[in-house]
Amino acid sequence: MRKEPVYSADFDFLPGHPAGVCLPQGFIAGAVYCGLKTYGEGKLDLGILVSSVPASVAGVFTTNLVRAAPVLWDEAVVQRGQAQAVIYNAGIANACTGAQGLADTREMATLTADKLGLSPELVLVTSTGVIGHLLPMHKIQQGVAALELVEGETAGLTASFCIMTTDTRPKRCVARLQLGGKQVLIGGMCKGAGMIHPNMATMLCYLTTDAAATPEFLQAIIRELVQESFNAITVDGDTSTNDSVLALANGLAGNPTLGQAASAEDELKFKEALRAVMVYLAKEIARDGEGATKLIEIWVRGAASKEEAHLVARTAAGSNLTKAAIFGSDPNWGRVIAAAGRSGAKFAPEKVDIYFGEIPLMLAGVPQPFEKAEAQEALKGPTVYITLDLHAGEDDALAWGCDLTQEYVVINSEYET
Amino acid sequence: MRKEPVYSADFDFLPGHPAGVCLPQGFIAGAVYCGLKTYGEGKLDLGILVSSVPASVAGVFTTNLVRAAPVLWDEAVVQRGQAQAVIYNAGIANACTGAQGLADTREMATLTADKLGLSPELVLVTSTGVIGHLLPMHKIQQGVAALELVEGETAGLTASFCIMTTDTRPKRCVARLQLGGKQVLIGGMCKGAGMIHPNMATMLCYLTTDAAATPEFLQAIIRELVQESFNAITVDGDTSTNDSVLALANGLAGNPTLGQAASAEDELKFKEALRAVMVYLAKEIARDGEGATKLIEIWVRGAASKEEAHLVARTAAGSNLTKAAIFGSDPNWGRVIAAAGRSGAKFAPEKVDIYFGEIPLMLAGVPQPFEKAEAQEALKGPTVYITLDLHAGEDDALAWGCDLTQEYVVINSEYET
Repeated sequence: MRKEPVYSADFDFLPGHPAGVCLPQGFIAGAVYCGLKTYGEGKLDLGILVSSVPASVAGVFTTNLVRAAPVLWDEAVVQRGQAQAVIYNAGIANACTGAQGLADTREMATLTADKLGLSPELVLVTSTGVIGHLLPMHKIQQGVAALELVEGETAGLTASFCIMTTDTRPKRCVARLQLGGKQVLIGGMCKGAGMIHPNMATMLCYLTTDAAATPEFLQAIIRELVQESFNAITVDGDTSTNDSVLALANGLAGNPTLGQAASAEDELKFKEALRAVMVYLAKEIARDGEGATKLIEIWVRGAASKEEAHLVARTAAGSNLTKAAIFGSDPNWGRVIAAAGRSGAKFAPEKVDIYFGEIPLMLAGVPQPFEKAEAQEALKGPTVYITLDLHAGEDDALAWGCDLTQEYVVINSEYET
Repeated sequence: MRKEPVYSADFDFLPGHPAGVCLPQGFIAGAVYCGLKTYGEGKLDLGILVSSVPASVAGVFTTNLVRAAPVLWDEAVVQRGQAQAVIYNAGIANACTGAQGLADTREMATLTADKLGLSPELVLVTSTGVIGHLLPMHKIQQGVAALELVEGETAGLTASFCIMTTDTRPKRCVARLQLGGKQVLIGGMCKGAGMIHPNMATMLCYLTTDAAATPEFLQAIIRELVQESFNAITVDGDTSTNDSVLALANGLAGNPTLGQAASAEDELKFKEALRAVMVYLAKEIARDGEGATKLIEIWVRGAASKEEAHLVARTAAGSNLTKAAIFGSDPNWGRVIAAAGRSGAKFAPEKVDIYFGEIPLMLAGVPQPFEKAEAQEALKGPTVYITLDLHAGEDDALAWGCDLTQEYVVINSEYET
């Protein structure tokens, strides 16, 4: 069994579109290698994304008590509601770096602002990489100076590579829709492969749109949609100090402003398209989890509340034992029910059904006979579908994780992230 | 830095003593191979531990919502306060087995009771192994019939092997003390290597003593000591359906009854000796975690409360990223502070100190320069000591985990536990 995605509005969805965040009108970007990625000599590691006009900005940040300098900076930008550029680097997270770290973030914003002729208050900053190291600011200065802004596919493509750390591939997409007779584009890109867990992680997501929207509207829907996208994925249970989802809406599409003059129908349509973008990007992160060979989709049905459905789905998706079993294509459903049992959700174990793919392995709490070879087959694809029906209510939720492999251990015992 | 264990009473501690649970007066045991351990042909997998007289009994069980049949049975025995025997099997957990599972547990108790001439209500039952499989009761019947009870070292030794699943070695110890002029012995054994997490896991612990004690006294101290022993270890974050800590006190030592006629001083002495037994056994489980090569001891100091100290210590000990770094002897302290930050405890990141062994890596929130080779050296021993001082209060706590290795993944992707 699997939940088919349902969207209550029409839009086009373009997964992997190379232009990504630079397809919406007015967004351009540039990237350079400035020497921060010590493990990937010559790989792009510093970039800037710019809107030709100031944009409404929204953001959601890590729930970790330990927050990196750029997170503190960006929260203030988001509070003011307007931004026009983002500077990002990969290789060093600028987390646990004290007062010097804050000064370095401010300098990154200032360097960008000076280059573009903006106020630093309009510049967002994100950093990802190893914790506890100071940024070599002379390299960043040289990088910003050298950086050339381009448009379209080159811009979107290089941006999506530039933000990668242990990611094996870039993650990009675009949604296209009509609002009030105008074409609106939403572009997105993200990075993240380790330190990924519900409630965000070393996860950075950048969303651009040429829609006109108030910052309040944007903030409200980003916050809501994060729950079912970036807060519904897990790679390793470790959350990070730097997580950020940032959205910029520059209004160049000329649609009636969302949150102000737009119809309720248009607002719904925009939200549904943004949902598709965010869920796609979140799943791409889980699928590209460090060392992963499979995406695991957990669908919890019949929960007493939406919260409990999420809780069970996320706990099951995050269980090391379940993840290792899936890697070995072992239909070990006992580990799934044990994970559900420790999730904190209330249900009657004797009512629960569990399916791996289409195969019922437990019905009403009773183990079902099954062909092991057939069940193993269901676990061999690039996406594994596991369904739990708790029979405790009407709510459901999805969560995504990945399998746990020897490669995860190799990556994380040898590479200082 | 490391916390030196402090005990406020005198007793002898004998780690690994072969007689284990059969050193205290009146305890004998027997074990057979009856065919439940499919992965270890010929290995002991069924055993009985008996006291020559009825004993006060106490028990603490899994917090997982999904609880195996033997857990339900044992809770009723513990409620009545008296027991005289325990039957245990390894290979099949008898969890998620519905009404048939409950009937099978009852039959195990009855077979044992009939063999020994006792009431089934005096027999505890524990099972460990794969979830969702029914016990082959004819094998258990044959096993119980074939089983011979022996005493001393042979009894304690075989018992500690019989309960193992993916454990690589048995875990046993003895404490010896004087209470009211009488020698009292406490024996302990336990098993557990995967599905190990704070709040117990596929973890079974059996404690025997010839001390006289009321069931209420025994229950109160077991419940308290579990917090700093079996609830302070983690292997993989997965808790189990079968966890049980069981204690039997048969009174043959003839001491003034603890909880009734004993002095407060004697009660403290017994508790301290039992603390040593339980902490030792818990650490043995973490050290023998599936695939582990190192024990990780996390000491959190300066917490605002005992609960927060535990929370931070357990979260850090359970972080996959920290565990993988320790495997690779990578002094990646950023992962430790990130784990502390997501634990839910309140502290000011800019005040925190972190030490790996004796080496300060972060002081007052600021990264310290250190010799990488020297820090790596501190991570190469069989036990790795990590200390966090939160500077948020006066409370402290220890937690234990183990490193995350490729071998963990191999074990859990290939073996159906």
